[in-house]
Amino acid sequence: MIKSQAYAASAADLPLAPFEFERREADSRDLVLELLYCGVCHSDIHYARNEWGYSRFPIVPGHEMIGRVSNVGSDVSGFKIGDLVGVGCIIDSCRHCEPCQDGEEHYCQKGVTMSYGSKERKDGSVISQGGYSTNYVIDADFALRIPDSLDPKGVAPLLCAGITTWSPLRRWNIGPGMKVGVVGLGGLGHMALKFAHAFGAELTLFTTSESKAADAKKLGASHIVVSSDREAMKAARGFDFILDTVSAVHDINPYLSALKRNGTLCLVGLPDQQLAFKSSLVLSNKVISGSMIGGIQETQEMLDYCGKHNITADVELISIDDINDAFERVVKGDVKYRFVIDLATLKNQK
Amino acid sequence: MIKSQAYAASAADLPLAPFEFERREADSRDLVLELLYCGVCHSDIHYARNEWGYSRFPIVPGHEMIGRVSNVGSDVSGFKIGDLVGVGCIIDSCRHCEPCQDGEEHYCQKGVTMSYGSKERKDGSVISQGGYSTNYVIDADFALRIPDSLDPKGVAPLLCAGITTWSPLRRWNIGPGMKVGVVGLGGLGHMALKFAHAFGAELTLFTTSESKAADAKKLGASHIVVSSDREAMKAARGFDFILDTVSAVHDINPYLSALKRNGTLCLVGLPDQQLAFKSSLVLSNKVISGSMIGGIQETQEMLDYCGKHNITADVELISIDDINDAFERVVKGDVKYRFVIDLATLKNQK
Repeated sequence: MIKSQAYAASAADLPLAPFEFERREADSRDLVLELLYCGVCHSDIHYARNEWGYSRFPIVPGHEMIGRVSNVGSDVSGFKIGDLVGVGCIIDSCRHCEPCQDGEEHYCQKGVTMSYGSKERKDGSVISQGGYSTNYVIDADFALRIPDSLDPKGVAPLLCAGITTWSPLRRWNIGPGMKVGVVGLGGLGHMALKFAHAFGAELTLFTTSESKAADAKKLGASHIVVSSDREAMKAARGFDFILDTVSAVHDINPYLSALKRNGTLCLVGLPDQQLAFKSSLVLSNKVISGSMIGGIQETQEMLDYCGKHNITADVELISIDDINDAFERVVKGDVKYRFVIDLATLKNQK
Repeated sequence: MIKSQAYAASAADLPLAPFEFERREADSRDLVLELLYCGVCHSDIHYARNEWGYSRFPIVPGHEMIGRVSNVGSDVSGFKIGDLVGVGCIIDSCRHCEPCQDGEEHYCQKGVTMSYGSKERKDGSVISQGGYSTNYVIDADFALRIPDSLDPKGVAPLLCAGITTWSPLRRWNIGPGMKVGVVGLGGLGHMALKFAHAFGAELTLFTTSESKAADAKKLGASHIVVSSDREAMKAARGFDFILDTVSAVHDINPYLSALKRNGTLCLVGLPDQQLAFKSSLVLSNKVISGSMIGGIQETQEMLDYCGKHNITADVELISIDDINDAFERVVKGDVKYRFVIDLATLKNQK
């Protein structure tokens, strides 16, 4: 077994605190990683606080990991010790069902194995633990190559916030000549703006806060619409595609109205209550859809694209000691635009 | 002006009654039709009873018309006296906007002219009156050629119920190897079954009424799911496409659950209240969309296909005297599957 130092939640109402545990043994198809950085996703908070009701404690959160390979299984090809590797939300799947065969392992019909809180496929006695920790054991098929040209701490959030926005923008063929809206400027929204800008779309940010205008323009938006401004919302029309990154329950009808015929509203937030819409608003072949992270091959394509186009997330680097404060600030939306834990600060705690 | 005998509603709370009026003059681009048949659509009832709140009275309903050409404008080519011609829901549009240029005149940005209740584009002093009447004046660009091989009374409903279901089935590329559901077996649903069967899909009817099973199988369904049967609904999975023809407010979540990833639920009913859905149900790239009738070129393609494949609607032929009873029966869903008025009975009333 492989010893790991980490920060974990022992119960839903307790702050994260230092924690030692053992990871499963690495087999011949695995890589062992010494972790360098891990992004802080709002999902980590939901899970640590059992807000979805199915958390297993103790839990080490973290699914935006960057590390260096410290051991390579004997049956692994294509990775060597010292390689920079990423691990995202998914670490294993059945590999045989239709979604797995299609490269959409995250929709595995037998249930994908998540980077924390899942029963490990290779050792059913072990629950996976995430990346707020010193190391990770990952099947090489689920390890992602990180371009050397990029700042690795800015790459960490690509593994969840990045792929979550990349996948629908690619699926719906966003490119030059298209009028695209992004709803919300948080971790997801800021990546959506960067990607859609790189793809050549004409970009509008819909936001509740006028204070985000300057940042949005730096990130590639040409226009800002404050969603509480009814006149501005009425004037926002003719969109080919709107990516809605808001997790809170909200009225999607104004965004359906803003679409042109055949346009698409894609939801990547996950409101826990139902959303309502006027059916008359979709009759001109408009689409409401949704998207969830992405598969391994698609994530690698995103990383390779980011390497070529020098795209990383905007991050605030924190020490592991600051994680509980960071959780509070994420809940308040007070981060530009993703906290990333410097895991060297975890090792120093020894 | 062209005199017409008809049945009209004089007010929202009055039954339809005999009515004489004058249609606009025909110009050099028009055809004059002697009408033979007109289908009875639920929309006719909504309009006659002012259930949408914008009806203009008196109103002659009817937008599924079949007639013979009795006069051809001097600038019209391609039609001659005696030709069998159809007129559907739309009779004119701006012809210049992007939707019009794309053959989607029904989404004309300046507002499409409807076959009844619209200000005529060629004579703004005239409100268009529908097909429960002896004749019609139609711009030749909006006239549809009816294949001689088909029974014309069974063709009438193709002009609204037909195109409304044809268009989304074509848009979403329904064909062999696809698992397709149709929700509701009324005028729309029965055409959806006929078309999707002709396109080679494996078909399931979702219905509230087990009594429709035998008919559904005749119309091409291989499977019937009674939507109140929770176990059967839970077992209904893996659909590529579901066409929901229900106009009443209803729960769409069970149909979203029945879709496979990347599947599409398309609404062609028009509930007057909002529909709610769990956003988690669209995260696997599922789509909620809607569709409304179709353009002129697409309607002609449908008619030509029906001519080749001998597809018509199942109809109950009625005399114009029976129209008010027919309205009641449509409201109750007591028709297999469309009433069509024999307009000869109108002429005989003279």
